[in-house]
Amino acid sequence: DKGMMAAQIKQGVRQVVLAKDELGKLGVAVADIDKGVFISFVWTGSAAALGGLRFGDQILQINGETIAGWKKAKVISYLKKADGARITFAVRDRPFDRTLTVVKDSHNQVGFVFKKGEITHIVKDSSAARNGLLIHHNIVEVNGQNVVALPDRDILKIIQEAPPSVTLTIMPSFLFKHIVKGIGFDKMKTYMDRSMPEM
Amino acid sequence: DKGMMAAQIKQGVRQVVLAKDELGKLGVAVADIDKGVFISFVWTGSAAALGGLRFGDQILQINGETIAGWKKAKVISYLKKADGARITFAVRDRPFDRTLTVVKDSHNQVGFVFKKGEITHIVKDSSAARNGLLIHHNIVEVNGQNVVALPDRDILKIIQEAPPSVTLTIMPSFLFKHIVKGIGFDKMKTYMDRSMPEM
Repeated sequence: DKGMMAAQIKQGVRQVVLAKDELGKLGVAVADIDKGVFISFVWTGSAAALGGLRFGDQILQINGETIAGWKKAKVISYLKKADGARITFAVRDRPFDRTLTVVKDSHNQVGFVFKKGEITHIVKDSSAARNGLLIHHNIVEVNGQNVVALPDRDILKIIQEAPPSVTLTIMPSFLFKHIVKGIGFDKMKTYMDRSMPEM
Repeated sequence: DKGMMAAQIKQGVRQVVLAKDELGKLGVAVADIDKGVFISFVWTGSAAALGGLRFGDQILQINGETIAGWKKAKVISYLKKADGARITFAVRDRPFDRTLTVVKDSHNQVGFVFKKGEITHIVKDSSAARNGLLIHHNIVEVNGQNVVALPDRDILKIIQEAPPSVTLTIMPSFLFKHIVKGIGFDKMKTYMDRSMPEM
């Protein structure tokens, strides 16, 4: 299943090497939570998007330096000063996310209600109920494609047009809200990278 | 690595079949969170322990009935009434947990401080820092063995006596606290199942 594979959260740490664009940009925003640094925004078409950084990824090291405990401002300042020709990142794949596959019924329904991307209701005896989908979680990806800050009707359309088996990437809402805090939803809606991850 | 394998969180749903003991007990306690039902306690040596139910597992169905949205009291009452000879559970493996492997240094240290099982400090440039261990998380297992409600010195001893590579199972503290709420810590300390999971 392509969607399941695209969504799959990998164990271990990967290396990502990026170069700044002609404006000196990488195209990411970050958030600091619980002494970790997380990707909170990936600009569509940016170096970060093309290099495969993903919303929710945890950055462990930059240019070999461990950044545990760094605040957002320190990370931004460090990246601004860094030589743009080559910046290496050690990255852990979306640690706050998990994936869950639901199967649409004969009415093309998966069995849950969501509001501003947050799951608010599980329909009795639906595929979502049988698979243990939970409320107080935000939908981050559908079949591996980022849907953060999309209007609910657009997310619904993506789900409705998907094959019968749909893999959701979800994150507890209290962590999601912490990660996106301070990033304008209009900016995210318009400019968030929504390309399909390479597999 | 045995510890890493014992801790590994499996995708998909497994079936567990239990019979009540001569006192009519299964040996589990549950908590309801976000419309899901989770195992909050497994009595050592009980049917649940021998059958492989694990702290943090999500119960999706009992005897084929989907229990999404059920409150704790309803689950307990349903289990009390159920025929004790054979009860089937559909179980999702510890969805709120994740695992992380750290390597002890030459002083047998992994590089983090914890208090009542909750990680409170990451030591600069330690293995914990390099691997992105986070504060505001509780240590649930060490190499797959449950350590919930053990005194900190006992958890430390288990880590110190483990091989150099130690796999931790962690859970965000706000979810952990929700799951264990209402279960006495003395009871958990003394009677929690801490057998090594079968692989």
